[in-house]
Amino acid sequence: MTATSLPTPVGYSLPLSPSGTSAMITPPPWHFAGDVIMVDYRVDPDAAARFLPPGLDLGPDPGAAAAVFAEWQWCSESGAELADPATCQFTEFLLLIGCSHEGRPMARCPYAWVDQPVPLVRGWIQGMPKQFGAIHQTRPKPVGVAGQRPAPGERFHGSLSVSGRRVAEASVKLTGLADEPPVLHTVPLVHTRYFPAWTPEDEPVSELVTSEVTGVEFTPVWRGVADLRLFDVLDGDFAALAPVEIGAGYVFSYAETLQGGRLLGS
Amino acid sequence: MTATSLPTPVGYSLPLSPSGTSAMITPPPWHFAGDVIMVDYRVDPDAAARFLPPGLDLGPDPGAAAAVFAEWQWCSESGAELADPATCQFTEFLLLIGCSHEGRPMARCPYAWVDQPVPLVRGWIQGMPKQFGAIHQTRPKPVGVAGQRPAPGERFHGSLSVSGRRVAEASVKLTGLADEPPVLHTVPLVHTRYFPAWTPEDEPVSELVTSEVTGVEFTPVWRGVADLRLFDVLDGDFAALAPVEIGAGYVFSYAETLQGGRLLGS
Amino acid sequence: MTATSLPTPVGYSLPLSPSGTSAMITPPPWHFAGDVIMVDYRVDPDAAARFLPPGLDLGPDPGAAAAVFAEWQWCSESGAELADPATCQFTEFLLLIGCSHEGRPMARCPYAWVDQPVPLVRGWIQGMPKQFGAIHQTRPKPVGVAGQRPAPGERFHGSLSVSGRRVAEASVKLTGLADEPPVLHTVPLVHTRYFPAWTPEDEPVSELVTSEVTGVEFTPVWRGVADLRLFDVLDGDFAALAPVEIGAGYVFSYAETLQGGRLLGS
Amino acid sequence: MTATSLPTPVGYSLPLSPSGTSAMITPPPWHFAGDVIMVDYRVDPDAAARFLPPGLDLGPDPGAAAAVFAEWQWCSESGAELADPATCQFTEFLLLIGCSHEGRPMARCPYAWVDQPVPLVRGWIQGMPKQFGAIHQTRPKPVGVAGQRPAPGERFHGSLSVSGRRVAEASVKLTGLADEPPVLHTVPLVHTRYFPAWTPEDEPVSELVTSEVTGVEFTPVWRGVADLRLFDVLDGDFAALAPVEIGAGYVFSYAETLQGGRLLGS
Repeated sequence: MTATSLPTPVGYSLPLSPSGTSAMITPPPWHFAGDVIMVDYRVDPDAAARFLPPGLDLGPDPGAAAAVFAEWQWCSESGAELADPATCQFTEFLLLIGCSHEGRPMARCPYAWVDQPVPLVRGWIQGMPKQFGAIHQTRPKPVGVAGQRPAPGERFHGSLSVSGRRVAEASVKLTGLADEPPVLHTVPLVHTRYFPAWTPEDEPVSELVTSEVTGVEFTPVWRGVADLRLFDVLDGDFAALAPVEIGAGYVFSYAETLQGGRLLGS
Repeated sequence: MTATSLPTPVGYSLPLSPSGTSAMITPPPWHFAGDVIMVDYRVDPDAAARFLPPGLDLGPDPGAAAAVFAEWQWCSESGAELADPATCQFTEFLLLIGCSHEGRPMARCPYAWVDQPVPLVRGWIQGMPKQFGAIHQTRPKPVGVAGQRPAPGERFHGSLSVSGRRVAEASVKLTGLADEPPVLHTVPLVHTRYFPAWTPEDEPVSELVTSEVTGVEFTPVWRGVADLRLFDVLDGDFAALAPVEIGAGYVFSYAETLQGGRLLGS
Repeated sequence: MTATSLPTPVGYSLPLSPSGTSAMITPPPWHFAGDVIMVDYRVDPDAAARFLPPGLDLGPDPGAAAAVFAEWQWCSESGAELADPATCQFTEFLLLIGCSHEGRPMARCPYAWVDQPVPLVRGWIQGMPKQFGAIHQTRPKPVGVAGQRPAPGERFHGSLSVSGRRVAEASVKLTGLADEPPVLHTVPLVHTRYFPAWTPEDEPVSELVTSEVTGVEFTPVWRGVADLRLFDVLDGDFAALAPVEIGAGYVFSYAETLQGGRLLGS
Repeated sequence: MTATSLPTPVGYSLPLSPSGTSAMITPPPWHFAGDVIMVDYRVDPDAAARFLPPGLDLGPDPGAAAAVFAEWQWCSESGAELADPATCQFTEFLLLIGCSHEGRPMARCPYAWVDQPVPLVRGWIQGMPKQFGAIHQTRPKPVGVAGQRPAPGERFHGSLSVSGRRVAEASVKLTGLADEPPVLHTVPLVHTRYFPAWTPEDEPVSELVTSEVTGVEFTPVWRGVADLRLFDVLDGDFAALAPVEIGAGYVFSYAETLQGGRLLGS
């Protein structure tokens, strides 16, 4: 018996296996539904520009940035993951920088953290630079003294810790409904899909991509007065994106379906 | 200088410290707001009876039991904890057995698990036998394919793992609104406050107590068809409370304020 | 059938159950074996004194203190826990203050953190004020560039984070064997066993106790140059115990058996 | 100001940043030092063959397999990671299957789990199919009743849980020193470096590679009587690799330096 007469192990991702059912990542589409706390802020435009690869520029609003906390539930096309809440939920924190590609406003995500391994690896496949962190945010509850809910005067909080160090904290005190969602949550994300070389024959994968998204839903968006602190406990590159000014905060729920990627350049 | 001329270190709980601010547990009242998935089921009444201490009997409905998943947000009187979502949230799984004290219907909690240390210790102060577990449950989301919300046909799931072993799984497929909350969530809990002896001079603390609760709020209660599995991976005493029949499932949000305890016997 | 004719549920601790096998905590003796990184330091004696209850004074060396990182393996008398490494291991960080009871040198532990729930609750039974933290320390490895082992020039590191905030960091660069173990690791610990009141009829349990320890074993103790930082991210009482001077560091392994408690006062 | 006049963000891996210091993964070489518990076992050779891609066959000993628990400490060339034990340690569980490439005996790793994100992503760069799990194993301690150490009669245990379900358990009761290390720990690993496509223009990365390893060190290898259980809680492909026979167990420490990869085919 030789292995070469057998089918090749398969899968959308590692681990490859005879039937493909062992793959850590299921193929897209992936459905996401989440609760979001978002704070607009401004960074030094020069610092922001240094995070943009060739093909992107700072666009119409240099220095626009945002910090986003989100608590997600997700599933693949079959919806099977929803039956095991131990695997279909994750939290996320990301920074966004306003930018432009060939005149089209987009958002660049220089840093992202999640608390589960599947979205981390799925992020790398798309080019989102997800690392591991502990993200906590106020959960809306419809009843009780301890239950915040979207209404004037209510406060929502978020925090990110990485390797046991507090990296970010934000809060939003709601004042009323917003006319529209925050800009950086409405433009497409542009990522660098990057996979390092390993053997001398390899070239790294390096592609400028955006995501094909459908099924976008927003609840009414609440707006408020925000605070945001990024602590200088990581490297200097991260520290360069600290707020120089803090804008409005937002609280809303959001859903989308991620269908796949589209190449912008390489 | 001698320590004896100084004030005694103080605090509601350990750690005691000069000003009392180091205590792990803040004094009651404690406010709770949570999302609940609950499944009524029936156990062998003989098995249930063996979990009741003197002073309690099985009451009007021998063998009535329930499994409860809850995701809580909590705060002390000041509300200060709400500013740090890393500390004001926890998940809980508990079993309840219907019982009666001097003719008053109550519920006994033979087993409980939480995922955070503060509610674990706070539980022991009240007599709730909380241990550590990983509890996950469907989170209601108002939008999206991946976002369950209370409506006919929607499914809610919960799971408990302890030390890396799956202990319980439940699901509820909603059919409509219930006329009233599930019985075992409306009667008072009766606990045995128990603190072991340590020195030869000690007697263990052992008291039959109930809790003084105010500020109870329910959202509309959804009802549905339920499933419940308790896996035989713990000890035989736990296994004796496995379902002999599974009843209705419920999904609702709930809030209460825990004011303190009341002695029923010792 | 009435519950009152049945045996009372039993157990060394909660949860009480028909046979007692559900108790979270097994009765002593408890055997411990661990790897220790310890740093002697000095605190303001006035600050230390404020942590001492009546009956204790600062003793022969006011201001003596230590920070201790330990990675433990433990078992009950039967040794059964050793078969499941998911439950028989924990890490610990504690502060110690030198003190004296009726002229006998002892050590007071004002703060302690562990990363597992069983040692947390077991600590409260003894009066150790254990809370939950993430403790990491260099693990001795006998081979490799990445494997520190006790030898001159080797560095051992420890860190404590609580709720995602870095609280303590220490390092020791070994210089040679010590003549004897660090003093605060050789004197008995004196704790306040404290369990809050809950009902109006309750008095809190409050006893000054020490522990009965047998089976003490030390490996050779390595000594070196130490660093220690306590970050001001908790309350002011904790901050008052920050180092005013840093002494020697130590690396060793240690074992003991904890047999029970002895009452010193109440 | 346009971004195109600025240097491209760089890094060995995502996140790319202006200076490259934000990369989650540092470039090789990577030094590893670990404690290993390993159990030889046999699988159905037909099942094993289905996990081999073209270019590999079952080699000289069809059905040879092993389960490996390891607790690692690691660092990059600078050794900087060793100063933060919160980031330089991880645990690992993997299965190995004996195979052959062009007549050279090698080992194939169909499944691997680690408890930290950096080794997970680093694994994917090399083609190791690492997922996230909770791995626990007996830690050797030189003293105490609760401290196992390599010696006849001592028992070492390991367990793997994934998403709160127990997946694997092993134990080894030592009988004496082995003449040599277990075979599957001495042959090179052969991986499929696989990175999914994302845009319509992409081809997945798919390469057969082996690793360039230097600095191999073994402590004396202890041998003993082993047990191994793989529980059927994952998919059928994993279940097909369950033991049909269990061989010897081994306990040892091991170090290596991973220098990079070598292409065997694509």
